[in-house]
Amino acid sequence: MPNETFYIGQSSGCKKAFTAEETLYYCRHLSGDNNPLHYDAEYAAKTRFKKCIVPGIMVSSLFGGILGSVLPGNGTIQLGQTCRFINPVFIDEEVEAVITITNIRQDKPVITFLTRVIKRDGTIAIEGEAVVLVATN
Amino acid sequence: MPNETFYIGQSSGCKKAFTAEETLYYCRHLSGDNNPLHYDAEYAAKTRFKKCIVPGIMVSSLFGGILGSVLPGNGTIQLGQTCRFINPVFIDEEVEAVITITNIRQDKPVITFLTRVIKRDGTIAIEGEAVVLVATN
Repeated sequence: MPNETFYIGQSSGCKKAFTAEETLYYCRHLSGDNNPLHYDAEYAAKTRFKKCIVPGIMVSSLFGGILGSVLPGNGTIQLGQTCRFINPVFIDEEVEAVITITNIRQDKPVITFLTRVIKRDGTIAIEGEAVVLVATN
Repeated sequence: MPNETFYIGQSSGCKKAFTAEETLYYCRHLSGDNNPLHYDAEYAAKTRFKKCIVPGIMVSSLFGGILGSVLPGNGTIQLGQTCRFINPVFIDEEVEAVITITNIRQDKPVITFLTRVIKRDGTIAIEGEAVVLVATN
């Protein structure tokens, strides 16, 4: 039962910098996104961002990694995810994804997390919520 | 101005089947997810899903591809995304991602989309909303 092993405020995180190669793979093979803002430095230089930015949902992949591997861990089924993309994450910029338990249902093994991606200067890049079903077998 | 070129109900979509190789790349290089449900067929066979499932946020990458490449197109900045993962998407299962305009702000170039991933039998795999800032330059 999740309310026996997890608690409100329990937290986990990971750090990662997404490379140009990873971003290109994501755009070409997964999302099919040919927005040059993600991989064309010359194009990006003319935008208000100045540099290539990693797609927001690609950065949000980190939440699933923590949820499925660490907290709650293997067998976790994600039911939902919300994301507000507040500040851009640039290629090769190390960010930290942090998930924190905000609610544990008593009637079923469902946990809600605050999910955030934080930049080195402390500003929030992405903020939202994940709802997961915890493996009970 | 977005309200001159876009309209409520305007829609675009794409079809894709995510391969085992793409899923493994996503888990190993992007999300860091070592949940065996995504790539270990023997493990998956013992779960209620029976087969390996593509991570929900990985499937949701398709929305960004359409938004950034087709509608509204290049230069689009995504401000937010919500996803409810209603039914699993399996490896090699072709699904269709469809985005439909539900709101166009009059005061700024911000558009809201209903975002759905639909399975071949018509059931919804993922449903949510995307909010984007349209390129105005």
